[in-house]
Amino acid sequence: MPGFEACGLGRLPADHRLPAVGWRRHRLFLLDQTLLPARVKFIQPADYRAVVRAIQRLAVRGAPLIGLAGAFGLAQEAWRKRGAGRPQLVRAAAALKTARPTAVNLSWAVGRLERLARDSRIPTRDLPELLEQEALAIQREEEVRSERMGKFGAALIRDKCRVLTICNTGFLAAPGLGTALAAVYAAHRQGKRIMVYVPETRPLLQGSRLTAFELSRARIPCVLLTDSMLATIMPEIDIVLVGADRIAANGDTANKIGTYQMALLAQQFGKPFYPVAPVSTFDFTTTTGADIPIEQRDGRELAFCGPRLIAPVGIRFHNPAFDVTPARFITGIVTDQGILKPPLKRAIARLIAHNA
Amino acid sequence: MPGFEACGLGRLPADHRLPAVGWRRHRLFLLDQTLLPARVKFIQPADYRAVVRAIQRLAVRGAPLIGLAGAFGLAQEAWRKRGAGRPQLVRAAAALKTARPTAVNLSWAVGRLERLARDSRIPTRDLPELLEQEALAIQREEEVRSERMGKFGAALIRDKCRVLTICNTGFLAAPGLGTALAAVYAAHRQGKRIMVYVPETRPLLQGSRLTAFELSRARIPCVLLTDSMLATIMPEIDIVLVGADRIAANGDTANKIGTYQMALLAQQFGKPFYPVAPVSTFDFTTTTGADIPIEQRDGRELAFCGPRLIAPVGIRFHNPAFDVTPARFITGIVTDQGILKPPLKRAIARLIAHNA
Repeated sequence: MPGFEACGLGRLPADHRLPAVGWRRHRLFLLDQTLLPARVKFIQPADYRAVVRAIQRLAVRGAPLIGLAGAFGLAQEAWRKRGAGRPQLVRAAAALKTARPTAVNLSWAVGRLERLARDSRIPTRDLPELLEQEALAIQREEEVRSERMGKFGAALIRDKCRVLTICNTGFLAAPGLGTALAAVYAAHRQGKRIMVYVPETRPLLQGSRLTAFELSRARIPCVLLTDSMLATIMPEIDIVLVGADRIAANGDTANKIGTYQMALLAQQFGKPFYPVAPVSTFDFTTTTGADIPIEQRDGRELAFCGPRLIAPVGIRFHNPAFDVTPARFITGIVTDQGILKPPLKRAIARLIAHNA
Repeated sequence: MPGFEACGLGRLPADHRLPAVGWRRHRLFLLDQTLLPARVKFIQPADYRAVVRAIQRLAVRGAPLIGLAGAFGLAQEAWRKRGAGRPQLVRAAAALKTARPTAVNLSWAVGRLERLARDSRIPTRDLPELLEQEALAIQREEEVRSERMGKFGAALIRDKCRVLTICNTGFLAAPGLGTALAAVYAAHRQGKRIMVYVPETRPLLQGSRLTAFELSRARIPCVLLTDSMLATIMPEIDIVLVGADRIAANGDTANKIGTYQMALLAQQFGKPFYPVAPVSTFDFTTTTGADIPIEQRDGRELAFCGPRLIAPVGIRFHNPAFDVTPARFITGIVTDQGILKPPLKRAIARLIAHNA
């Protein structure tokens, strides 16, 4: 196992971030994450339908980030169709909110703009500017939340900490520096030496393509693993930090497929397991994880790696993009408003009350 | 989840097998498994060094099958260098036995031929024929063992059984119909309806490329999964059947990376977990799993999928090809001489005594 000799000096290179979602002259641009790490290319979706497609094909992904992309997508639509009326914006909002079903941040963020678009007290001509301002407000708020999650999460990370994560939860997944990786970045800035264990996260390899890419740009040491090595490396791990796509009122947490087995194995080895998520990821209307819709994706994601066919034709595939970790396997949830500890149902109820 | 409506009628198509290792006119040929499922191509390694390379690059793989390939590799060397003397054969045997370190079948099978090559009572001119006969004997014995493992394993599989496996353990992994998959084939021939859950088995995808390929040729229904979906599908599974690369005297079992976490998850969900292996996979000289050498493979297996770069350059990789499942997580071991039940140490000692 590697040591900590390659750790940086508590600084993040000034240029380690890339703008994964941007807004310029009333236009949305996106870093096409499907091409990473081989190629850094930005795209400009022409209309809301193109934004929906970009979200669905994972050009932009990560629960908080698709929320922001959806919000900018609706703001762009308001500018594009200036004065065309509310029904068109409501239709675009409906399509954007349902582009992917599991991450609640998407309907939360687009919903904030939609409420303005539906508000008959606001003159139609004011909508483009208002929706743009609302999307920019979401961006600023989520950046502050990322900063705070980083601060609270970093308190769990000691010097020479070995952190296990899954998928990607950094600046490619959320405004600011991310969710779980924001804690890693914050701890690194505090001068703590950290080693991040990165499962590649099949089928779309957000671990190897995105997290390893982020961490190597930030010069934070990481080790790439297959998703099948968790039991083997778990004895060396100090803490498991993951993201979240939706957290139900009882603490059940939907996240990237593979999170559930990671939580079970963490428990079996006595390792702490924390999702890290902003308040926008909590769904107070979903009672338990059983009510969270799980996106089933195309089996071709398993049958091909790029152009290479890696499975025989004609077989069946099981390809859920997410799973639900029951609350009882969760040590605590790092939020932008502090760390929630069990009983999670009560802690989440207090969070609701505080944000009502 | 899929149903059983597509199950066959208890027959295996006559042509479902492919000769993964063959012997013809004193020459070894191998099905190049690295090209499956896209291409069926046979290769003829020119000398023992080429056989070593074929084993190392996984053109031929599966513990019992690389044992047979190594044995034929040495027999071919005896024919190729007729009368050249024992030292050359002993050198070739040493290289073949150590081509890969974990599967004990390799040194076991090559060792059987090597003992003949070292026996000074045997005239040098007789060695080619004798070594060939010994390799063919190993093939016949292992085929019989596969048949028996299939019979004993099939008794664990009831009608409408949902079997979880890992990697490939069929006719591409062992002489005959394999190890764990031999049990599936035998149960299928008994008319039982079976659904096989196949994790793709990263990094080299023996699950998707080989097991799904075998099962679809045999018209046995299967579902392809990523290695990260185990906790999600475990509630539906009836039995876990895996192969083995080396079983220590106490029952600790080395097998494809990912087997250990599968065993832990099986236990957590109360599902039976059985390795299936012939007596040639037991290593009576290895006391516990801690003494089993684990092959570390090149990180490029994680960095590339075919020609496609899927990780940033310059990061570290952890790429053990195997892990060790401690005996306490094993429900029983299906062998060609019956099913061993805990305490495994005692059952294995009896197996030793019986085969001494």
